Amino acid sequence: MVTLYSSPSTHSSGPVASYSNSSIGLYNYHHNKQIAVSSILSRKFGSLQINQKPFWNAVRMQDGAVATPPSKIENETPLKKLKNGILPVAPPKEQKDTIDFDSNKAKSTVSITVVGASGDLAKKKIFPALFALYYEGCLPEHFTIFGYARSKMTDAELRNMVSKTLTCRIDKRENCGEKMEQFLERCFYHSGQYDSLENFAELDKKLKEHEAGRFSNRLFYLSIPPNIFINAVRCASLSASSAHGWTRVIVEKPFGRDSESSAALTRSLKQYLNEDQIFRIDHYLGKELVENLSVLRFSNLIFEPLWSRQCIRNVQFIFSEDFGTEGRGGYFDHYGIIRDIMQNHLLQILALFAMETPVSLDAEDIRNEKVKVLRSMRPLQLDDVIIGQYKCHTKGDVTYPGYTDDKTVPKDSLTPTFAAAALFIDNARWDGVPFLMKAGKALHTRSAEIRVQFRHVPGNLYNKNFGSDLDQATNELVIRVQPNEAIYLKINNKVPGLGMRLDRSNLNLLYSARYSKEIPDAYERLLLDAIEGERRLFIRSDELDAAWSLFTPVLKELEDKKIVPEYYPYGSRGPIGAHYLAARYKVRWGDLV
Amino acid sequence: MVTLYSSPSTHSSGPVASYSNSSIGLYNYHHNKQIAVSSILSRKFGSLQINQKPFWNAVRMQDGAVATPPSKIENETPLKKLKNGILPVAPPKEQKDTIDFDSNKAKSTVSITVVGASGDLAKKKIFPALFALYYEGCLPEHFTIFGYARSKMTDAELRNMVSKTLTCRIDKRENCGEKMEQFLERCFYHSGQYDSLENFAELDKKLKEHEAGRFSNRLFYLSIPPNIFINAVRCASLSASSAHGWTRVIVEKPFGRDSESSAALTRSLKQYLNEDQIFRIDHYLGKELVENLSVLRFSNLIFEPLWSRQCIRNVQFIFSEDFGTEGRGGYFDHYGIIRDIMQNHLLQILALFAMETPVSLDAEDIRNEKVKVLRSMRPLQLDDVIIGQYKCHTKGDVTYPGYTDDKTVPKDSLTPTFAAAALFIDNARWDGVPFLMKAGKALHTRSAEIRVQFRHVPGNLYNKNFGSDLDQATNELVIRVQPNEAIYLKINNKVPGLGMRLDRSNLNLLYSARYSKEIPDAYERLLLDAIEGERRLFIRSDELDAAWSLFTPVLKELEDKKIVPEYYPYGSRGPIGAHYLAARYKVRWGDLV
Repeated sequence: MVTLYSSPSTHSSGPVASYSNSSIGLYNYHHNKQIAVSSILSRKFGSLQINQKPFWNAVRMQDGAVATPPSKIENETPLKKLKNGILPVAPPKEQKDTIDFDSNKAKSTVSITVVGASGDLAKKKIFPALFALYYEGCLPEHFTIFGYARSKMTDAELRNMVSKTLTCRIDKRENCGEKMEQFLERCFYHSGQYDSLENFAELDKKLKEHEAGRFSNRLFYLSIPPNIFINAVRCASLSASSAHGWTRVIVEKPFGRDSESSAALTRSLKQYLNEDQIFRIDHYLGKELVENLSVLRFSNLIFEPLWSRQCIRNVQFIFSEDFGTEGRGGYFDHYGIIRDIMQNHLLQILALFAMETPVSLDAEDIRNEKVKVLRSMRPLQLDDVIIGQYKCHTKGDVTYPGYTDDKTVPKDSLTPTFAAAALFIDNARWDGVPFLMKAGKALHTRSAEIRVQFRHVPGNLYNKNFGSDLDQATNELVIRVQPNEAIYLKINNKVPGLGMRLDRSNLNLLYSARYSKEIPDAYERLLLDAIEGERRLFIRSDELDAAWSLFTPVLKELEDKKIVPEYYPYGSRGPIGAHYLAARYKVRWGDLV
Repeated sequence: MVTLYSSPSTHSSGPVASYSNSSIGLYNYHHNKQIAVSSILSRKFGSLQINQKPFWNAVRMQDGAVATPPSKIENETPLKKLKNGILPVAPPKEQKDTIDFDSNKAKSTVSITVVGASGDLAKKKIFPALFALYYEGCLPEHFTIFGYARSKMTDAELRNMVSKTLTCRIDKRENCGEKMEQFLERCFYHSGQYDSLENFAELDKKLKEHEAGRFSNRLFYLSIPPNIFINAVRCASLSASSAHGWTRVIVEKPFGRDSESSAALTRSLKQYLNEDQIFRIDHYLGKELVENLSVLRFSNLIFEPLWSRQCIRNVQFIFSEDFGTEGRGGYFDHYGIIRDIMQNHLLQILALFAMETPVSLDAEDIRNEKVKVLRSMRPLQLDDVIIGQYKCHTKGDVTYPGYTDDKTVPKDSLTPTFAAAALFIDNARWDGVPFLMKAGKALHTRSAEIRVQFRHVPGNLYNKNFGSDLDQATNELVIRVQPNEAIYLKINNKVPGLGMRLDRSNLNLLYSARYSKEIPDAYERLLLDAIEGERRLFIRSDELDAAWSLFTPVLKELEDKKIVPEYYPYGSRGPIGAHYLAARYKVRWGDLV
């Protein structure tokens, strides 16, 4: 979970977007439909052979989007494009990937601006991920990285700052120092306010210098607090959009704090960006085992027949952190664990888990299926939620502070740091199957996992060989997202020996034992996808709306009724209430056995 | 595979069984129906908790069986037995396990006679297994072991001989030396001919001395060549049966060499023994992972939906030895690999694999289902078999002899040392699914395994992520019976990294990693089962008949047509023909990829 901002203190929060749509329309002239950009720069990752795929997928620019002077485009468009005759008229689907921009490769560039460059997220995740992509040869030949923040800093100071965190993942590889030098040479800094058109225009000027007349695409990563999102989007869009390539914006959660505020945020974003330009990041979707969820299910015959209410008794999505807010509770207190983890990370995984087979692996097909799952779900009921908050706990000589001991948290805060919930998908596949979620801070362990508990064997010949608790005798598929990525399937097995004693053993796939390569950080995958225009792992507006619809009523009710959380000691297994909730649906949490 | 006999040279082979049924009938008097014997001596195996079960199951003695003088029985029968009133009239099913012989425990004993005690099987398998059972506390308190063979030997010499092979499995445990001493003290020897009623009567006398008036049960393990089976059975039955307990006979393959000879053997056996006294051993059924086959399938919900033609593309039963006959081909040449391995070991495993869910885990229920599978199978066609014979092969400085280089094998022998076959079960569950078998000597590896290849994923979204051979992308369940017992499920998985490359990884359960205890030898389990009267893992006469029906026509045809085997080099992967046979049914051998 990342809730780290560049500077969570001062910010502008005034009215947004006085700049009107029509004024952007001026640029759209007669190329206001589609511009497809493609390249066959393929991903390289170590020695792995990867299917060749276009480095940049099609880019569409529609009304209201930042667009480009037609003359410039003509200059950059290869002959082929005109030969194919698809530029102005072909529908987007057909157009995609059909234009060979090979000849333009050398002339194109991507500029990545990290807005909020001095923040923790930027330092700990974004710059290291960009470096890893560079190291692996996944970035285009020409690229420029700009840090943007309010602090005064020189390029050298930025490089110095960035270099301190680059070592985290790659330091064991060869030529790392050399590569790092090369990478840092492409990093620059521009100081400016997040709401200043003028400051962004200065940035634009600098970007143009670096782009040096190349066909330029621009990616803005907004690593800034939610209340200044819109101003920054406005300024980036109006003052620093690419003149003749795509402009995309990665935004981090929170995407509002309920249906209304989320919808308002989306409306505001859409004043400056169209849907295709918005990359709402949920970094859980970039995690290796979440990515693998669809592979497991759809490329293995053995799983598909099991993937329904016929065989599955319940599914659990569990997230635990073994630390609290630790003096950084200011942001968190405004949101709470349900908004921070459940409504996004866990719900996204649930949707991926439960969706019907998509028509294809294309982003829109997958996102369509995910939305269908969310829309088939019952809004969460207050009865089906329990909330908790950690209290201080002394173990030996060490006293771990309670949540409200955090100086950035109000003493009387009722914000949940733990929640468990039972959700239901009222469709043909999942009717009656409880989907349980559990998320908490300051628990005894750190983990994120999916547990699929299968039904009992009807007429089990071996029932007498199990103990009295037959629930212990059912199969369970566990996908451990973190740490120590693993997939294992609990099966009943005969204990070797002369008797007939059964146990549950694991059919195990531990990633560290199977794969020697490091697993890339979720941010690497997501940044690369954003550069490539691959939207599969980003959240579409309608998905976001549907997700909020499920949680907004109960969130309001919890706040309106001032429901007091169940207190649990720091470092414990969480509130007992979670077990009673599970028991209501005949479920037993798989992680606490 | 065990084809080791006490002395394969001289033996009587004259006409058998002049002793008539009626003369045995004299003993049967009025207790000719049922005698149920039971005990709650439970199996102990290390610290494992094992369900309490009767140590001796019900024993039935019927017409023609060796029986007991009624007066003696009355003496030994506890009051309870009479109170229950079930002795003379209750049907066997109800009677089973209902009589508590606790009070008799101290007075009962079991005498185990290993006929053919000086043979390799006895030395390498039977005595060590008996010792292991003793060490583990699985033998009853009172027991006596007799070696019987033609060689002259004293008890001390037998003990000396036996002691040399006892160390193989248990030597790392504590008190092993002490336990071994105790065990050897219970071992005795009697020299005699296998066809001498007189010599067996002498044995009987000695057994009685050791039994010392206790309620005595007797187990004969016939570890002798097939042509002297019947004589030994006759003599043991008539001269050395228990006077007032059960008498059981374990017989080893070969059970004939075709339907006729097998039926004749069974008829002869049944002159002296009833079905319940005959324990036809197929030691593959005693192997840990074969035992586990039913557990896997019937106690795990995830497997049952997959266990049919809907999901399974083919099943493979593979047996490889990495050595040839090595100067012991005399017996083998008379039988060949099909009779030696396929018709029994592999077919038994196939039947267990493919059977419908039995009513219960009782022996008769399981054996009923197995017979149904065998009876649903098409007799093997000549087209569906390929045979091979290994030839000499020089590797570096070493020359490995061909099969016909074995001095005990005729130079012009066409006996197959390798065979592959495609079999079909024409029932609702398995219609059209090829069941492939492969067995061979002198191959590149030693192993026995079951491979279940699942179908392709219909409409696989990930097809383009696999190579050109989509067969490589299907799931496979592998049950490795030996060596290094393991269960693994090949699944398609995303290779960690930024691309979308898939591989086949294993969900793995390696026994050596999961279970620290040694896996008992198959003979331990089977001997214990025979002592307990558990017939589940022994082959019933009708099963045997059905098994022969499948193979007899093709065996005759191979011999009549003098089909020449395909020659393959010693230590190779076997005849190429096996691949063409597999290809006919769109199968690819899972062990040679």
